[in-house]
Amino acid sequence: MEFLTGVAQKETLELSQLLTSDMEGKTVKTNGAVHTIRDMGNIAFVVLRKREGLLQCVYEEGVTAFDLKDLKEAATVEVEGTLLHSEKAPGGMELRLSTIKVLSEPAESMPIPIAKWKMNTSLETNLNLRPISLRNIRERAKFKVQEGVVKGFREFLDSQGFTEIHTPKIGSKGAEGGANIFKLEYFHRPAVLAQSPQFYKQMMVGVFDRVFETAPVFRAEKHNTKRHLNEYTSLDFEMGYIDSFEDIMAMETGVLQHIVKVLKEQYSRELAILNVELPRTDEIPMVRFDEAKRLVSEKYDRPIRNPYDLEPEEEVLISRYFKEEYDADFVFVTHYPSKKRPFYAMDDPADPTFTLSFDCLFRGMEITTGGQRIHDYHQLIEKIEKRGITTEGMDAYLMAFKHGMPPHGGLGIGMERLTMKLLGEDNVRETTLFPRDLSRLEP
Amino acid sequence: MEFLTGVAQKETLELSQLLTSDMEGKTVKTNGAVHTIRDMGNIAFVVLRKREGLLQCVYEEGVTAFDLKDLKEAATVEVEGTLLHSEKAPGGMELRLSTIKVLSEPAESMPIPIAKWKMNTSLETNLNLRPISLRNIRERAKFKVQEGVVKGFREFLDSQGFTEIHTPKIGSKGAEGGANIFKLEYFHRPAVLAQSPQFYKQMMVGVFDRVFETAPVFRAEKHNTKRHLNEYTSLDFEMGYIDSFEDIMAMETGVLQHIVKVLKEQYSRELAILNVELPRTDEIPMVRFDEAKRLVSEKYDRPIRNPYDLEPEEEVLISRYFKEEYDADFVFVTHYPSKKRPFYAMDDPADPTFTLSFDCLFRGMEITTGGQRIHDYHQLIEKIEKRGITTEGMDAYLMAFKHGMPPHGGLGIGMERLTMKLLGEDNVRETTLFPRDLSRLEP
Repeated sequence: MEFLTGVAQKETLELSQLLTSDMEGKTVKTNGAVHTIRDMGNIAFVVLRKREGLLQCVYEEGVTAFDLKDLKEAATVEVEGTLLHSEKAPGGMELRLSTIKVLSEPAESMPIPIAKWKMNTSLETNLNLRPISLRNIRERAKFKVQEGVVKGFREFLDSQGFTEIHTPKIGSKGAEGGANIFKLEYFHRPAVLAQSPQFYKQMMVGVFDRVFETAPVFRAEKHNTKRHLNEYTSLDFEMGYIDSFEDIMAMETGVLQHIVKVLKEQYSRELAILNVELPRTDEIPMVRFDEAKRLVSEKYDRPIRNPYDLEPEEEVLISRYFKEEYDADFVFVTHYPSKKRPFYAMDDPADPTFTLSFDCLFRGMEITTGGQRIHDYHQLIEKIEKRGITTEGMDAYLMAFKHGMPPHGGLGIGMERLTMKLLGEDNVRETTLFPRDLSRLEP
Repeated sequence: MEFLTGVAQKETLELSQLLTSDMEGKTVKTNGAVHTIRDMGNIAFVVLRKREGLLQCVYEEGVTAFDLKDLKEAATVEVEGTLLHSEKAPGGMELRLSTIKVLSEPAESMPIPIAKWKMNTSLETNLNLRPISLRNIRERAKFKVQEGVVKGFREFLDSQGFTEIHTPKIGSKGAEGGANIFKLEYFHRPAVLAQSPQFYKQMMVGVFDRVFETAPVFRAEKHNTKRHLNEYTSLDFEMGYIDSFEDIMAMETGVLQHIVKVLKEQYSRELAILNVELPRTDEIPMVRFDEAKRLVSEKYDRPIRNPYDLEPEEEVLISRYFKEEYDADFVFVTHYPSKKRPFYAMDDPADPTFTLSFDCLFRGMEITTGGQRIHDYHQLIEKIEKRGITTEGMDAYLMAFKHGMPPHGGLGIGMERLTMKLLGEDNVRETTLFPRDLSRLEP
């Protein structure tokens, strides 16, 4: 009988194993995709794309046992050669090739110059050709940074005693109600796609005290803007036994601090490729909604048009204000008007026309909505009735409250938006692997 | 201006801070949900449920500044008291209460005895009352173990150079085709829910070499069995530059070994609560599909009825065989017949009626399907044509191959099934937070 015993070290090495000073002069094997071939006559530079970066290989006629004419860009290969110091090679070393073995060949040549530093394709073309445009080093790096964001989110919450949960995306009713819900047929019954894990994460506070989820959410919003997606990954948490809604903002501050730490420590390569300036997270200012409106109205001489919500331009100005006045990249805007927040939001006892809720703005854009929730069953029912909402499909949600829930609150962070603002992109599609919007259902 | 600077240590302590020997005699604050009250007359035992476990508190008339009559089960409280050694208390210490502050109260008493060790409710009732049945200590522990499974999966793949991806769940076409697809309307266009991230993870092998995703998948299967769900969390990975499909099984072996390690090190409390015997993962036998059929047919005197697929009973017998013969908990069954595998499966060059694919059986049930995929564009097109499949909606998928893909393969593990077999449960709904099946769309 044959047995598997785990992962064995391969002969073919990765960049982090190749590009160390003690490897100089060694004969090694590696593999990768042929990113570019620069034929200089007697020699050629063959750059391999590997998961950790690029490796410059040198083909020499008569030395490399292979006919260069048989090597195509976008082929994948296994090569053998000697590592030698080279000032100009990425990582300071290049591989003098002795053999090339072709593992696979493309059927057609590339329609876009993926090996260029900046491809200069339109976003539309980039998205249409996503499976190959992402092979560009800068494009790929964006999603490594995004991985770091999610890793930092999970790691920090794990360290704070949160439990990761997986809640259903098909349900009988949306958490927030409203029209922006995708509908489907579920074995001859009407069903919807979850617009957020809101109800589930609240119910699970009664079980685990602190929970988080990183999962897709679905919004049938008919917005076609640079900041909206119809499907995105929501980084959600919900925590019980809070003393005030500031505890939630303090936790988000901790999350953001840890994300920056993870990026600095583990994603420096990608940060350098993308020339990212990491934001300040040591202290994040907190300002009331109405105060924020007043401050920017005064400083930038702009009339307040809608007293109940922030217009995108106001978000930009609030961020600008706090950057100018406090060198802050993030700002918490608190106490949103009750009428613009969902029924489960906790009204401010001091003035129930406002809520104990907040948005977090990052470089001009809302990346988080959060707040304290009502935890008392009777209070919740009262607010539902006052709003004239049906409790149909809310049985389980209300059950949790009927049988006791601690004071709690939480938030949701848009993963793509946070990545977008981290990277200084101006369209959320740039930091979405395969965006879904009004017109885009493929690839 | 006020600033948030991160998470501050609270006065209220968690169990891991309370139940250490140097805390004996100390006056402390903590909080929790009132799990049970046992009134003994002059004293009462008030057990608090906290996220890390239970804390026994002692209420003494005349000592605790509170009227016990005002304390309800399922209330949440903040308490103060002195920690004292107690043989009988969980964790060896109990809290002699000086004060109780009620944070929230239930509106109704519990319909099920959640404080019992085993609730003895039917699965149906348990699922109907999910938000509160999960407050039972054993129920809750199942999902902590599940958290450990996912953590182990991610951690190991991260250490092996995999990139985490987030792929869309709404698309224009299912990856595997067939009838088991949920359909929805996407802004007046027909759309479907992803039955797997198959196409996307393969495309991303061309970008990151190694990728994984932990996300929901949707199957409109009309099975109402103990092992099927219509929505579940799939632990997927896909890896490039494989030398053979054994590399994929070796990687899964490594994943399973790390999961067991994480559970041992970080979830010993839950393993003890659930009396879990961790499986052997040091070596996992590998047997051909036809050979496995023959072995169990001979040993257990059972005729082979369907030569192309494994019946559930056969999966049980194969696991039994390898347990009896090799003390193995997992077994890889390889070389499934080509006609039962999807078009993208790599046929075995030695006999193209079989594929370089496998299932992993765990204690009698398939928990993983995986294998090597076709990476050559022309070969892929040929197989698609031979099967008479339409390539409609596959443009992006085929684009990846047209422009070069390394030899690769991968797998998907059913999170709920793996947890189910780890815990010795016999219905996958037991290890699903909020199951979706033919009749269950709520809660």
